Amino acid sequence: MEPVDFDEVATTTRAVRKRLDLERPVEPDVINECLEIALQAPTGSNSQGWRFVVVTDQAKRSGLAECYRAGWRKAYGSTDPTAGVPADKAAQQERVHSSADYLANNLERVPVLVVACLLGRVPEGTPTAGWAGFLGSIVPAVWSFQLALRSRGLGSVYTTLHLYQEREAAELLGIPDTVTQVALIPVAYTKGTDFKPAVRRPVDEVTYWNGWKQAAGSSSD
Amino acid sequence: MEPVDFDEVATTTRAVRKRLDLERPVEPDVINECLEIALQAPTGSNSQGWRFVVVTDQAKRSGLAECYRAGWRKAYGSTDPTAGVPADKAAQQERVHSSADYLANNLERVPVLVVACLLGRVPEGTPTAGWAGFLGSIVPAVWSFQLALRSRGLGSVYTTLHLYQEREAAELLGIPDTVTQVALIPVAYTKGTDFKPAVRRPVDEVTYWNGWKQAAGSSSD
Repeated sequence: MEPVDFDEVATTTRAVRKRLDLERPVEPDVINECLEIALQAPTGSNSQGWRFVVVTDQAKRSGLAECYRAGWRKAYGSTDPTAGVPADKAAQQERVHSSADYLANNLERVPVLVVACLLGRVPEGTPTAGWAGFLGSIVPAVWSFQLALRSRGLGSVYTTLHLYQEREAAELLGIPDTVTQVALIPVAYTKGTDFKPAVRRPVDEVTYWNGWKQAAGSSSD
Repeated sequence: MEPVDFDEVATTTRAVRKRLDLERPVEPDVINECLEIALQAPTGSNSQGWRFVVVTDQAKRSGLAECYRAGWRKAYGSTDPTAGVPADKAAQQERVHSSADYLANNLERVPVLVVACLLGRVPEGTPTAGWAGFLGSIVPAVWSFQLALRSRGLGSVYTTLHLYQEREAAELLGIPDTVTQVALIPVAYTKGTDFKPAVRRPVDEVTYWNGWKQAAGSSSD
């Protein structure tokens, strides 16, 4: 494969929903290649408790799509996604919602659905430290997987809605009770080749130096 | 900057502890540049609730190091890190522990400590779906930040131990109660230039197709 510049990949990997190519098959080899890169991400104490269930079987994709839509209804119901959102943000909220709506309605048509799992369960009442440690052992690998897909012309999106039906999805895929599903990643080739950075709040608005809301250079350091 | 191949960066970004260069200063510009790349990671509904507190002030670094060591004692106490670990894994466990021990004892000497925060708090009793969604809006950005650092010759490591003292760390940095600290990322130039992929379990051992423990090609699909 041609080398692809890291900065280019990292700044142009978007959450892809409407631009997933539902017609073009995805070769198992490209999934394996991207997972191999993903496995170089760190895990706490090098535990490597990650497991990836790659779903291409049509009946199982349809089952996962049902779980996803049930989760969607639980999480959002039929509420207006722009309710209570300031006018200047409403248009963008609506764009995100329309895109998410499209994904929910077409999920079983996405050629590959990857369920990222981690061995173990987090006990109820676990504080942030526990969750940040646990999920910190799988989310970097998932994001590396998504970046690797992007570098090879595929698109994906990190979703968690099917987790509201985690038990049903576990039964569908035979995932044991001792395993946690963390995310569902739809994967397909991307329609078009127009990859751009997103508009984001500038770095100095979200970065503080040596204390909350302190700008660079304002410290005694 | 020279282009750096994505696969090369993604497969050679290790958790760096002993090889952090404690003597060489880190320019604020390189931190900003890497954060700018990090901000291109996705967040749920494009909420961009991330905030990064970059700590260079010596007194504050020392305070964070105290929080980290207190968390270390809470999480591991003085237990033998190899207790109950199978013999073939004990050597590696011990290596990880010795490296983590080194970091704990030298944290205030690392030139830059970045505390990754997310606006909002997760209510007690929130299920996996909520945590995976919440942390999925910051951990990809943190990992992009670490990859970007690596591509520029710096090393870092995702840590969560200071979170066992989250309140003390919040007081030290003036972080409001409504904000969640997710990770503490020590950052420094890396000693040496020998970046290698890690030894990992092979991809086919951790990847299942269409069902738990099913190998590729075993499905009816």
